[in-house]
Amino acid sequence: MRTDGRQWDALRPVTMTMNPNKYAEGSVLIEFGDTKVLCTASVEERVPPFMKGQGKGWITAEYSMLPRATQVRNQRESAKGKLTGRTMEIQRLIGRALRSVVDLPALGERTITIDCDVIQADGGTRTTSITGAFVALALAVHKLSKNHEFAKYPITAYLASVSVGVINGKTLLDLNYEEDSKAKVDMNVVMTGDGKFVEIQGTGEEAPFSRTELNELLGAAESGILELVAKQKAALGLFGNRIGTANA
Amino acid sequence: MRTDGRQWDALRPVTMTMNPNKYAEGSVLIEFGDTKVLCTASVEERVPPFMKGQGKGWITAEYSMLPRATQVRNQRESAKGKLTGRTMEIQRLIGRALRSVVDLPALGERTITIDCDVIQADGGTRTTSITGAFVALALAVHKLSKNHEFAKYPITAYLASVSVGVINGKTLLDLNYEEDSKAKVDMNVVMTGDGKFVEIQGTGEEAPFSRTELNELLGAAESGILELVAKQKAALGLFGNRIGTANA
Amino acid sequence: MRTDGRQWDALRPVTMTMNPNKYAEGSVLIEFGDTKVLCTASVEERVPPFMKGQGKGWITAEYSMLPRATQVRNQRESAKGKLTGRTMEIQRLIGRALRSVVDLPALGERTITIDCDVIQADGGTRTTSITGAFVALALAVHKLSKNHEFAKYPITAYLASVSVGVINGKTLLDLNYEEDSKAKVDMNVVMTGDGKFVEIQGTGEEAPFSRTELNELLGAAESGILELVAKQKAALGLFGNRIGTANA
Amino acid sequence: MRTDGRQWDALRPVTMTMNPNKYAEGSVLIEFGDTKVLCTASVEERVPPFMKGQGKGWITAEYSMLPRATQVRNQRESAKGKLTGRTMEIQRLIGRALRSVVDLPALGERTITIDCDVIQADGGTRTTSITGAFVALALAVHKLSKNHEFAKYPITAYLASVSVGVINGKTLLDLNYEEDSKAKVDMNVVMTGDGKFVEIQGTGEEAPFSRTELNELLGAAESGILELVAKQKAALGLFGNRIGTANA
Amino acid sequence: MRTDGRQWDALRPVTMTMNPNKYAEGSVLIEFGDTKVLCTASVEERVPPFMKGQGKGWITAEYSMLPRATQVRNQRESAKGKLTGRTMEIQRLIGRALRSVVDLPALGERTITIDCDVIQADGGTRTTSITGAFVALALAVHKLSKNHEFAKYPITAYLASVSVGVINGKTLLDLNYEEDSKAKVDMNVVMTGDGKFVEIQGTGEEAPFSRTELNELLGAAESGILELVAKQKAALGLFGNRIGTANA
Amino acid sequence: MRTDGRQWDALRPVTMTMNPNKYAEGSVLIEFGDTKVLCTASVEERVPPFMKGQGKGWITAEYSMLPRATQVRNQRESAKGKLTGRTMEIQRLIGRALRSVVDLPALGERTITIDCDVIQADGGTRTTSITGAFVALALAVHKLSKNHEFAKYPITAYLASVSVGVINGKTLLDLNYEEDSKAKVDMNVVMTGDGKFVEIQGTGEEAPFSRTELNELLGAAESGILELVAKQKAALGLFGNRIGTANA
Repeated sequence: MRTDGRQWDALRPVTMTMNPNKYAEGSVLIEFGDTKVLCTASVEERVPPFMKGQGKGWITAEYSMLPRATQVRNQRESAKGKLTGRTMEIQRLIGRALRSVVDLPALGERTITIDCDVIQADGGTRTTSITGAFVALALAVHKLSKNHEFAKYPITAYLASVSVGVINGKTLLDLNYEEDSKAKVDMNVVMTGDGKFVEIQGTGEEAPFSRTELNELLGAAESGILELVAKQKAALGLFGNRIGTANA
Repeated sequence: MRTDGRQWDALRPVTMTMNPNKYAEGSVLIEFGDTKVLCTASVEERVPPFMKGQGKGWITAEYSMLPRATQVRNQRESAKGKLTGRTMEIQRLIGRALRSVVDLPALGERTITIDCDVIQADGGTRTTSITGAFVALALAVHKLSKNHEFAKYPITAYLASVSVGVINGKTLLDLNYEEDSKAKVDMNVVMTGDGKFVEIQGTGEEAPFSRTELNELLGAAESGILELVAKQKAALGLFGNRIGTANA
Repeated sequence: MRTDGRQWDALRPVTMTMNPNKYAEGSVLIEFGDTKVLCTASVEERVPPFMKGQGKGWITAEYSMLPRATQVRNQRESAKGKLTGRTMEIQRLIGRALRSVVDLPALGERTITIDCDVIQADGGTRTTSITGAFVALALAVHKLSKNHEFAKYPITAYLASVSVGVINGKTLLDLNYEEDSKAKVDMNVVMTGDGKFVEIQGTGEEAPFSRTELNELLGAAESGILELVAKQKAALGLFGNRIGTANA
Repeated sequence: MRTDGRQWDALRPVTMTMNPNKYAEGSVLIEFGDTKVLCTASVEERVPPFMKGQGKGWITAEYSMLPRATQVRNQRESAKGKLTGRTMEIQRLIGRALRSVVDLPALGERTITIDCDVIQADGGTRTTSITGAFVALALAVHKLSKNHEFAKYPITAYLASVSVGVINGKTLLDLNYEEDSKAKVDMNVVMTGDGKFVEIQGTGEEAPFSRTELNELLGAAESGILELVAKQKAALGLFGNRIGTANA
Repeated sequence: MRTDGRQWDALRPVTMTMNPNKYAEGSVLIEFGDTKVLCTASVEERVPPFMKGQGKGWITAEYSMLPRATQVRNQRESAKGKLTGRTMEIQRLIGRALRSVVDLPALGERTITIDCDVIQADGGTRTTSITGAFVALALAVHKLSKNHEFAKYPITAYLASVSVGVINGKTLLDLNYEEDSKAKVDMNVVMTGDGKFVEIQGTGEEAPFSRTELNELLGAAESGILELVAKQKAALGLFGNRIGTANA
Repeated sequence: MRTDGRQWDALRPVTMTMNPNKYAEGSVLIEFGDTKVLCTASVEERVPPFMKGQGKGWITAEYSMLPRATQVRNQRESAKGKLTGRTMEIQRLIGRALRSVVDLPALGERTITIDCDVIQADGGTRTTSITGAFVALALAVHKLSKNHEFAKYPITAYLASVSVGVINGKTLLDLNYEEDSKAKVDMNVVMTGDGKFVEIQGTGEEAPFSRTELNELLGAAESGILELVAKQKAALGLFGNRIGTANA
């Protein structure tokens, strides 16, 4: 039994509060249990210098934790004067994952920046961020689609993410902080709504793992992600149906 | 008439959601209209090096805005690698204001750090932050008082803050962003619950002001602050009665 | 009696050495007692990016202390790699105060940067800086006016600043360092030559103050500032008469 | 056929020049084709502050590319004043991977820092680095073992890494730069000498991949890694036999 | 003839205003023509970490130019967030030169920091700084000697510095800015009062020079430096006689 | 006798491995005994902003040491976030020295950046770097000359550098690390192939030196440099004959 009473293959309660921010083109406050992330999408009608003149759009992401999102207060990265390696790694991951489901030429020469700010952290902040970032992105593209005639709808698939791990030889889905710190194997998986892998990042720093264990972890992750995608569809409602159809 | 229908001497709707953060020793989500600030208080059982061995405590504050708290997205200070002058000025102000109502020797050798993170900004983020920071501080001291025998109660008075300004010759209380950008004179006032000034910062960059105008501004600020203090008292409830009594 | 023998409402001896720097468009070495600040004005025929194409000029200021300007040597901000919050706060204040008496469209698309470098500090470095910065600015605008046909004279009023504070219940004008560190209330006031407030920054970190005390502080500041403006007029001589007249 | 004539499942020529550096406790110049990385191991008889007093050792890694290691010269990170996200991500990966095969309590309170400096880059710099870093680490531990009586031999398994990718639907092993920039799926795998996974990092930014493709990629990686481990064993010679035996 | 009417082998007018700073243990405002440098010596009763426990003192120097010390305003290094290579090179030179005439064990475990702040620059700021830094150092050591019983007098020789250069085949002493920018060969020489070389830094970036030219340059430098030392002796007066005698 | 058995006026064994880097326009791995420096030349068809539109080329250099190039591991400058003064001083010296033998107008509007990365350090890294940097530069210019019609050949002379020092009253050529740390006088000399001085940097921090000693040091340096130039000529072969002829 898990400390919070969950089955080993159960997600924590997931909630998505849509558009809590009155300025952003799209936003969601997403919660995986006690992990709460505010995701906002900001649209700019230009692309970064290295993308100019290619007729393509750009998607990028930034990630940060409030100093007291965690049990012990962390120093702000702005006060330290630099981003930690962990932050850079996570925001690169979020951006890369989102771009895998966006048709950048269809988006046109504009940039969508997704900010993932962790309000409270209880494990799984990067998977919660990716899952929420997709929703904020979808809201922003939907808003854009009201004023822009896209030749093709730029979002090509749903996208969500979840963590899996091994504790005492048991495969667990969606680890909270306490579980995460005990897990021997720790894996984050990002998949599309049609069941393809976008990112797999697995680490067995404390105990290398076999191919059999890997397969079990990926199976658990897949079912968790499909459940998350179902929740995203429910939250986005009707207009979410355009995702992946290429119908403008 | 004001754009949001308020009287010239009326505050915006004020709400305080108590202890939204499960880790912090005290926290509040405070809203002045559409300005929303999450204030958390973190207690550490040590003081900074320059305070060591004096038998006194320390109160400090940090302030930050989420990148899309505003109409146009701002670059993160962590990405820039340094704090802006505006941020430094505001967090120095918050810390100084809070220390004015704390008996540092009575607090003992511990540090309370108040983080004010602006979730959404619509004018008055520094006054909202100070008003919320006081509440988070009071919650943290109250929590401390359950386990520590204070010889004297360390909070000596209530504290709140509001902005006032002049538009078209009219004195306005608690300016929203649109009003703030039109005001010729802009003033932030911090007062104690017993009506004394802790900070006055008034600037007439676009139009110097007379002593008469100053008096009118201070009068408006005073009545707004007393109203805010009443709301703080209501939110803190019974234990708020110890504030200012020195009864441990 | 004050430690240096002054009356409670007396300024320290004020001297202004005009144009000590052979390169700057305007410069002054200003002394308030043992506080000595070198103020230089540098004119550039362009404005910062955010001001471009608006047909307006820009005034900005920088402030720094030499490492041994103080009793104990301070580390250089260049060696630390960043400006302190105190420095940023002061240079923002100086720039804002100067802009309040400059008609930026009349100045035309050029920038005047005022550098205030504290050679020796004995309290009141920010008020000394503002008072000297105005003189350096006036010298530079006068020099500009010899070669440029201003449609209107760009300086709209005189500007000076002084500190006031409360020690043992007594209101003191122009505090030196020793007094400053003992004062319970500390206030810096910037006024125009015609007696209007440009900035009021008062802090009662150690003891909140009442409206009555505030009025007494402002009265003392006002008489000190008018005396400083008289000294500025004497130093600038004839051409100073154009200030505030709008006569090109 | 691959541009360099290799079979799709063939490694590039691998060479290891042992101990090229006269100061380091262990060093190797490792080459995967035209990718050349100098790996040095430095032993210090202390651990970082966060590890103190736990009776355990620490392994950490740093990664850098010489500015002209690549076709076009890159600006130095020392000149930029900060590490890129890519560098941080890679050096965190190398350190984590090495720690998975070291028994930190057996190592004792000392730190081994592995520096991986890329002299020339032609794809696969992170996998070349990990494979070489292990060799440098093994040399340093062997040197230590001559003077220290380890109760248990601190290296618990061999460790190597290789990249795999998909181009035109074909799975390729050990991609060079040209192949890497064309691959739709890109995966780096780190395994122990006994065939267990330590890290899997796969990304399908340009084309999500199925479970079937994943299995094919992992199969190719596994055979490549076992071949690399055989080369490591040959290079380390006799004393390499102690690795994984726990015999001190 | 030189633009300022000097002979080719003449120094500019040299003045030294002794102890202009009321806090520093020693200070001098030194002028070589229009080049003006404020040198202050600060004594601390401790040494940097790398010198601890060796029973020796330490001498270090910092150098900076005010932003408008030059014809065109320079950005502050504090605003840039780092020191330029030129500044680092100069302050390393000043410190090294001063240490060559101090008996560090005789000084005892204390640090003297010499700050050289260029108030106005017209060529030769580093040679003016070294010459003035020596005077400030001598004043500080003299002040120390009143309260400390030195077993040996810690300053072992006088020290001064001058620049020499070649313009149109002619060797010039003590170049001003205009000459400096025209010189093909540029050399800074630091010597002791008894005619020994401490530093020679000569560069022929625009025209390599022969041994004959070098000898002529060194001859000119030597006579200039001896003249500067005579001025230092005159300025220091009686107590300067102890320098180089080792009599405590 | 010297610790490595050399005569006092002998160079260490010098080797130059030509073009070890497959991407750089010119490169050499140069060794002075155990000091090994990889020098690469990178050509860009543009000049830095401050050189634009002058019809001239630019030569610049960067210098760095691998962290374990030395007996004790050094922290990376990229991790520190800034270059040390020593690094800046050395790379400024290398660039200046190279420019003294390049006809910048003849080179045309392009930049050649020479990177000197110290792989292993045993004294004399700056003189080894300069000597190798010249070879890399010559290789790059030769490669350029195959595709560009230079009106004049842009390299005007050979250039090499060596260190000299005084130990126990004896003048030594080309000091290794152990000797360098014992030397009282330490001098680096850069000369052209026709025996003219480009840079002399001599420091007698621990013992000032006389004109006689200086002459002996310069004599030793000259003969060492001429020997190094002979080795450069041998390494460059036939095309090296164009250097200094101005024949395109």
